[in-house]
Amino acid sequence: MDDSTEAYLCINDPNGNRAVHCSESHAHLEEEKFRRKLKYFFMNPCDKYKARGRKPWKLILQIVKIAVVTIQLVSFGLSNQMVVQFKEENLMAFRHLFLKSFRDSSTDTYSIYTQHDVYTHIAFTVKQFLMLPSITVGNHQYEKEGDVYTPLTICQQFYRNGSISPANETFDIDAQVDEERPFLYLVESVCVFVFFRLLTVTVNFTLKAINLETVEYHELPDCYVFDIMITFDNKAHSGRITIDLDNDVHIYECRDWSVTDASPRNMYMLVLFDVIVILILMLSLLLCARSVKAGVHLQFEYTEFFSIHHGKHVSFSDRMEFINGWYILIIVSDVLTISGSLLKIIIQLKAVASYDLCSILLGTGTMLVWIGVLRYMGYFKKYNILIITLRAALPNVIRFTCCAAMIYLGYCFCGWIVLGPYHTKFRTLNVVSESLFSLINGDDMFATFKNMQHKSDVVWLFSRLYLYTFVSLFIYMVLSLFITLITDTYDTIKVRE
Amino acid sequence: MDDSTEAYLCINDPNGNRAVHCSESHAHLEEEKFRRKLKYFFMNPCDKYKARGRKPWKLILQIVKIAVVTIQLVSFGLSNQMVVQFKEENLMAFRHLFLKSFRDSSTDTYSIYTQHDVYTHIAFTVKQFLMLPSITVGNHQYEKEGDVYTPLTICQQFYRNGSISPANETFDIDAQVDEERPFLYLVESVCVFVFFRLLTVTVNFTLKAINLETVEYHELPDCYVFDIMITFDNKAHSGRITIDLDNDVHIYECRDWSVTDASPRNMYMLVLFDVIVILILMLSLLLCARSVKAGVHLQFEYTEFFSIHHGKHVSFSDRMEFINGWYILIIVSDVLTISGSLLKIIIQLKAVASYDLCSILLGTGTMLVWIGVLRYMGYFKKYNILIITLRAALPNVIRFTCCAAMIYLGYCFCGWIVLGPYHTKFRTLNVVSESLFSLINGDDMFATFKNMQHKSDVVWLFSRLYLYTFVSLFIYMVLSLFITLITDTYDTIKVRE
Amino acid sequence: MDDSTEAYLCINDPNGNRAVHCSESHAHLEEEKFRRKLKYFFMNPCDKYKARGRKPWKLILQIVKIAVVTIQLVSFGLSNQMVVQFKEENLMAFRHLFLKSFRDSSTDTYSIYTQHDVYTHIAFTVKQFLMLPSITVGNHQYEKEGDVYTPLTICQQFYRNGSISPANETFDIDAQVDEERPFLYLVESVCVFVFFRLLTVTVNFTLKAINLETVEYHELPDCYVFDIMITFDNKAHSGRITIDLDNDVHIYECRDWSVTDASPRNMYMLVLFDVIVILILMLSLLLCARSVKAGVHLQFEYTEFFSIHHGKHVSFSDRMEFINGWYILIIVSDVLTISGSLLKIIIQLKAVASYDLCSILLGTGTMLVWIGVLRYMGYFKKYNILIITLRAALPNVIRFTCCAAMIYLGYCFCGWIVLGPYHTKFRTLNVVSESLFSLINGDDMFATFKNMQHKSDVVWLFSRLYLYTFVSLFIYMVLSLFITLITDTYDTIKVRE
Amino acid sequence: MDDSTEAYLCINDPNGNRAVHCSESHAHLEEEKFRRKLKYFFMNPCDKYKARGRKPWKLILQIVKIAVVTIQLVSFGLSNQMVVQFKEENLMAFRHLFLKSFRDSSTDTYSIYTQHDVYTHIAFTVKQFLMLPSITVGNHQYEKEGDVYTPLTICQQFYRNGSISPANETFDIDAQVDEERPFLYLVESVCVFVFFRLLTVTVNFTLKAINLETVEYHELPDCYVFDIMITFDNKAHSGRITIDLDNDVHIYECRDWSVTDASPRNMYMLVLFDVIVILILMLSLLLCARSVKAGVHLQFEYTEFFSIHHGKHVSFSDRMEFINGWYILIIVSDVLTISGSLLKIIIQLKAVASYDLCSILLGTGTMLVWIGVLRYMGYFKKYNILIITLRAALPNVIRFTCCAAMIYLGYCFCGWIVLGPYHTKFRTLNVVSESLFSLINGDDMFATFKNMQHKSDVVWLFSRLYLYTFVSLFIYMVLSLFITLITDTYDTIKVRE
Repeated sequence: MDDSTEAYLCINDPNGNRAVHCSESHAHLEEEKFRRKLKYFFMNPCDKYKARGRKPWKLILQIVKIAVVTIQLVSFGLSNQMVVQFKEENLMAFRHLFLKSFRDSSTDTYSIYTQHDVYTHIAFTVKQFLMLPSITVGNHQYEKEGDVYTPLTICQQFYRNGSISPANETFDIDAQVDEERPFLYLVESVCVFVFFRLLTVTVNFTLKAINLETVEYHELPDCYVFDIMITFDNKAHSGRITIDLDNDVHIYECRDWSVTDASPRNMYMLVLFDVIVILILMLSLLLCARSVKAGVHLQFEYTEFFSIHHGKHVSFSDRMEFINGWYILIIVSDVLTISGSLLKIIIQLKAVASYDLCSILLGTGTMLVWIGVLRYMGYFKKYNILIITLRAALPNVIRFTCCAAMIYLGYCFCGWIVLGPYHTKFRTLNVVSESLFSLINGDDMFATFKNMQHKSDVVWLFSRLYLYTFVSLFIYMVLSLFITLITDTYDTIKVRE
Repeated sequence: MDDSTEAYLCINDPNGNRAVHCSESHAHLEEEKFRRKLKYFFMNPCDKYKARGRKPWKLILQIVKIAVVTIQLVSFGLSNQMVVQFKEENLMAFRHLFLKSFRDSSTDTYSIYTQHDVYTHIAFTVKQFLMLPSITVGNHQYEKEGDVYTPLTICQQFYRNGSISPANETFDIDAQVDEERPFLYLVESVCVFVFFRLLTVTVNFTLKAINLETVEYHELPDCYVFDIMITFDNKAHSGRITIDLDNDVHIYECRDWSVTDASPRNMYMLVLFDVIVILILMLSLLLCARSVKAGVHLQFEYTEFFSIHHGKHVSFSDRMEFINGWYILIIVSDVLTISGSLLKIIIQLKAVASYDLCSILLGTGTMLVWIGVLRYMGYFKKYNILIITLRAALPNVIRFTCCAAMIYLGYCFCGWIVLGPYHTKFRTLNVVSESLFSLINGDDMFATFKNMQHKSDVVWLFSRLYLYTFVSLFIYMVLSLFITLITDTYDTIKVRE
Repeated sequence: MDDSTEAYLCINDPNGNRAVHCSESHAHLEEEKFRRKLKYFFMNPCDKYKARGRKPWKLILQIVKIAVVTIQLVSFGLSNQMVVQFKEENLMAFRHLFLKSFRDSSTDTYSIYTQHDVYTHIAFTVKQFLMLPSITVGNHQYEKEGDVYTPLTICQQFYRNGSISPANETFDIDAQVDEERPFLYLVESVCVFVFFRLLTVTVNFTLKAINLETVEYHELPDCYVFDIMITFDNKAHSGRITIDLDNDVHIYECRDWSVTDASPRNMYMLVLFDVIVILILMLSLLLCARSVKAGVHLQFEYTEFFSIHHGKHVSFSDRMEFINGWYILIIVSDVLTISGSLLKIIIQLKAVASYDLCSILLGTGTMLVWIGVLRYMGYFKKYNILIITLRAALPNVIRFTCCAAMIYLGYCFCGWIVLGPYHTKFRTLNVVSESLFSLINGDDMFATFKNMQHKSDVVWLFSRLYLYTFVSLFIYMVLSLFITLITDTYDTIKVRE
Repeated sequence: MDDSTEAYLCINDPNGNRAVHCSESHAHLEEEKFRRKLKYFFMNPCDKYKARGRKPWKLILQIVKIAVVTIQLVSFGLSNQMVVQFKEENLMAFRHLFLKSFRDSSTDTYSIYTQHDVYTHIAFTVKQFLMLPSITVGNHQYEKEGDVYTPLTICQQFYRNGSISPANETFDIDAQVDEERPFLYLVESVCVFVFFRLLTVTVNFTLKAINLETVEYHELPDCYVFDIMITFDNKAHSGRITIDLDNDVHIYECRDWSVTDASPRNMYMLVLFDVIVILILMLSLLLCARSVKAGVHLQFEYTEFFSIHHGKHVSFSDRMEFINGWYILIIVSDVLTISGSLLKIIIQLKAVASYDLCSILLGTGTMLVWIGVLRYMGYFKKYNILIITLRAALPNVIRFTCCAAMIYLGYCFCGWIVLGPYHTKFRTLNVVSESLFSLINGDDMFATFKNMQHKSDVVWLFSRLYLYTFVSLFIYMVLSLFITLITDTYDTIKVRE
């Protein structure tokens, strides 16, 4: 920004720290007026109140917004938590009920290695399913379609036909995959598997349950449908079949119910609250959009004014000063939270069940709202060290991170290709990146050293060299430079003020 | 503080570093006298001794206090330790005796999943209880009321009545909870549970024991009463019943006893020591209160003097200079330790057993006493770098922490709502905060990455983005700024001196 | 470099930051010409393009190189991954099939302690081997030589003869080791072991399998031969025999095969791609070598020119300026990657199977290529903070590391000799170094403290002193000095610019 | 040091950095001579060689010393390692042989809870002992005295007599402890325990073995005697009996032996080497002692000279300059290593077996020798940043550490008393200190939060407050100040030079 520009502009930076040094030399009347308009535009709410008595409605609205958005998030989270817990405990119960000699501990993967085990495990599952009513301690029941219970199905996938003879090093295989899917109408049947052609066996069945725990909290219980699928995976034909039980859960409102001594569901209250939240957010969105619009308008006015009076174009960075980054943040957060709230209403009306998307929208929105608080803190001097330093350091930090990322990527690729076969922490590129990132932050280092398989001496030596140099380079050099960058920025800012 | 004030005040800061620059221009007699009084007030013990020969009684008292308070804490801790260990070993023994196939390892939660297991577990507990005298290797015995042994009771809680049919998606439940509590007078009885209505089954019984180990340390053994409660929790009706054994412990002095070759309990010595500690603390409290009172008095005097002679009010921060923060610290620590010591005496006389409160009072008191030592170190120059830097940095650090806390809170809420269902470290807001705090300090990072359940791709991607940005932002930026803040404060102090 | 030299040389440093301050006083024509030549030599590609319109072919080539080398590495890694997984799952399957009551968990070492266990474990292995076809869920088969199946062999190693009598403290042993190697042609035989002379028992057999999973990815399955060796190790005669199952894997192209519905192997495409990569690398190597040669040539010219005109020798560091370190880096990385690619082609043609060497060559090459990107980033000002600071700090860092290494080595030796017998993390010098290095970076500290065996009080005390001083010295002093060194270098650079 | 002193002294600091600024004004002849003597005294070996051609014998001796001392330590460590491994494997084998259903995993403590278990465990141990020859896979044998085998003894300790009735809250106990110690001459006998009086049961027996593994390394096998003691500990009478197997190991040279095809022990070579090491160390010790003596002598001379010519006393710090700290370090390390080597010779001659003391002496000695290398590095300028900065920062660091230690101690006491009963990491003062120290260095934080027992809400809240404040205070404030201290010292040194 050259001198002449500053004479007209005299923009206070948004935090109001810089004193206004305006050369009053060519202060014509029109200019003076425009100058005042500009000055008012860049004022903060407190100053605006002092200058023209305008009440800080927007500020109050933002504070209200923070409160209601957080309340909404917490209430959503708490109700979600009960559902998550019920789903998880049921999954655990199914694993213990339908998988033979299942144990909770995470060290062993649940796998079987002999043909006999496959048959006994499937037989066990079927037996437990048939006896379920007299076994389960929950209120699980079979699904009914009309009067007929939904059967348990055992589905096997296998190569259509083929002959494999590793001993002769010959094979003849039809890569087409066939499926066989016998239904078990509550009587046990006999399956026969041809293991060398077998790809997967899946056992499917459906159970229903009601989550009664909500009665305690005076909410209406929901009906749950669990589509359970047990998969015996032999795709690798490595002699090991891994077993996995997973379930899809659908949540309905029950058809017919009566609860003595329980108040009716306060769902409509919740929806009402959500609607209020949405209205508040809409208002906030509107006001911010208006401000941004005003800024853009003023910018065009200024550009015109400036080019007429000075015959020069306004630089891009000067123009950007008119668009307040905080408003953009607020608009983004409002849009996210509104979408989230709408989705939440739909979820509560049991229309869809995309909890994940809803929680990401609400979560990110709320996070941005909270970060937006920093803006109001910045109105008090001294409170904006963090935000100013971060903003000032950002360009350098990003440039620096780019350079460091090159070395980091080099190490990632190299670690993946060389150490991948010998260390679980270097199996995939994604895991390599996570494990190196953790190493930089001082995590699990000795375990990383120790768990390296010592099969090939040259790889082992390489792994030592790799780890020592990586850690030294990143912790001692790169992290230290990070501290230096921040310190330097802080000093620059301090001197400038 | 304006110039004229300083002329009268000439306050040495408590550490005596600042040289006294007093303008002697209007040094009237009265003023001079008052000035000296002020100067003496702000002297440290050594200077006071040099100036008027006043022995540093308060200093000596504080040193004695540190010694006795620490001795008291250690003796309380050591005696507490034996009790805690006995309680814990008994709890462990009860778990192994009364819970079927219980294992110490913490990876498995102790849960059962079938109706049959519920009956066999309860039968096992009852059998073991009945056979206890011939099983236990400790000296556990049944409780007796008069000549009658206290029975084992099995209490089941269930919904009054109802019919639940998940298959039809209908239910009719009476939310009223009933209890059935049959007493077992040392004969086994048969219970029948209706699982879909069952909420909890609790098995209660009472055992008594004597902690003989204290005989070795020439103390009198105490009598213990263990109220044991085994809870089978089916509130969730998820198909999983978690079992938990807990006990309430009451400690009595035994009614009738004789120990050959053991000296009588040195309890009265302990109480005597506690009384001495209390007296010392009282004295310390009194002296400090007097000093604070003198300070307040002098402050009023000064305010009056100042407003008469200069017609101005004394600023709040100037007034605060008269109240020594260290005295406040000592008074708080004294009050805490006195309350703790009183409670300790009552506990030792077996009147109440609120160990927790007592240990918090004594612990916090002792901590403050030790931190108070820093004051005396501050009398030696160069020894107070830490305390001065911390005090000077505090306002900036707090402001900075407020800003960082906003971002931190945003991340907490967002992490809880989005990642909560997929990661145990994000289950509750409290745990989220702990786990993020640990991440900042470089803990368990790879495990946090790894244990994220990979069910939904979008959530998984979000979790990566969330963790990478959080760690980078807080470790590389916020922590670095912290170091910068401290460095800056240190430099400022160094230049000033 | 003295002033007169600079007058001629006017070398821009490779990053083009330093302005050219050339004294034009004795600028004769010849000199001027040479000066321009020099100047052009030290230009970066962009400037060269601006100056003489030379297209930056080398730059484009490097960018293409990064892309193809990374693609090559990733494709090699992905195909490798499937092989590694198949090998590993087979190994796991073999452990579960042939080792009695084997469990995945890593806490227990798999060992046996009684003579009876040795016999039963061997019998189990033999039984499982004989029954393999009806047990395995994979497609494992025995190896055949002609029509004869390769037998299972049990080989025992023992001292030739001897009598040992610890009770009498006498022994008479023939240190010569004998081997007995009975072949088991698919019938079970009886072995008898004399345990006090027994050194090892190894059970060897060979299995074959085909990795069918590749069919899914439309690749041709490979044939695998597993040479399995189970070792019962009694060398220590300590009463504990550790059992280990390991296998050597050989991968062949199957002799005869037909896959319906699968496209033929795209191996020739892969080899073609590798050849293209090699050609690109060759070109890059050639161009860089030419540049280096030109640099060397120019250096000699300059030396001659300089000694004629000034009668002085050019200093070594001035001469080194002519040899661009980045070219050396590129040449090294090209040579490594070319060797790796050649090896990769040979591996893909199933001639050799040295995956490890190939992955080290390719990995290191690719890492260097990525690090080489930093050079091009350095062309943009401000982007080379990292590289400049690192280069400037390097001499100091190395000197400093040497000094710190002396203390580190002292601690390593001392920790190994004193704490080795009492802590697994101090067993070998290599492990000591790893564990101390991890400690510096804040890892596993409490576990290190806790797992110290408390057998001898003096050693225990020593261990506390050792760990506290080591951690304090290195984390608080040495790491802090590291940060200071980097900060100092950064400041120096900033001031210089 | 005042000006006049400096005129005479002109001491170069040992690193030769400070230029010699000597006022030549009153340079009389005598003074000049003495000054030269002083100057020569403070020269480093290189300068001495340059000045008077004196060969740096001491320097060469030190380098030789480092080599031989390290070789000695490594050879001692390697031979020690084999012994340690044999001992440890035997202990593990004994645990598996003599303890019923023992498992390696460390999560479960090995305890029993019923009377029946005590009898079966003891019976199992006795049975295994009696059948040992036909069970063990090692070469364990019973001990013989003359022709009689040493028996297994079962020793029970119990209160002499007493009656305990927790139900009536009465007890009558004779605190005198009796012992009963039946010998089992290889026949099983029946024991009866009165559990409420029982304190401990110990099973003792002795086994012998020969470590044959050394034959492989062409060393002579040693004879081992294992005194095994199994302790059933019921001191707490808490219902839990913990079982522990421990052994004392004695190592002898076997009485009579013959090894075919093995070279005789190279023990005499080892002893010879040790003797050489001791001689070299002696020489080093002598030379250093001479230098220190010369320094002291010169100091007296200087003091005298100074007081005559100037009539003033030399300050203590000036006098200290004459005594080189490095010589003290070398003398200490020499004395330690000589003692260690002597002890090592005695151990190798099988006279005593205090490995621990020997390893501490040798280890500490070697560590100091390596740290002493820094002295020689200091002769090269720029290489002594580390040592100079550390030395300069030391006083400030120590002062600062004292202050921080007060707060640390306060936290230790408070954490121990309040959290001790609820968290294993706060059980004893020593463990509290270790765990807090680990927390500062960023270790195990989340686990510390998580494992806090949630029994009392107030304690739980306190624990959160405690941990958050402790970590924030120490990591963000104290550690940052540490970095600042070091940075400040470094800057000071840099400016001074």
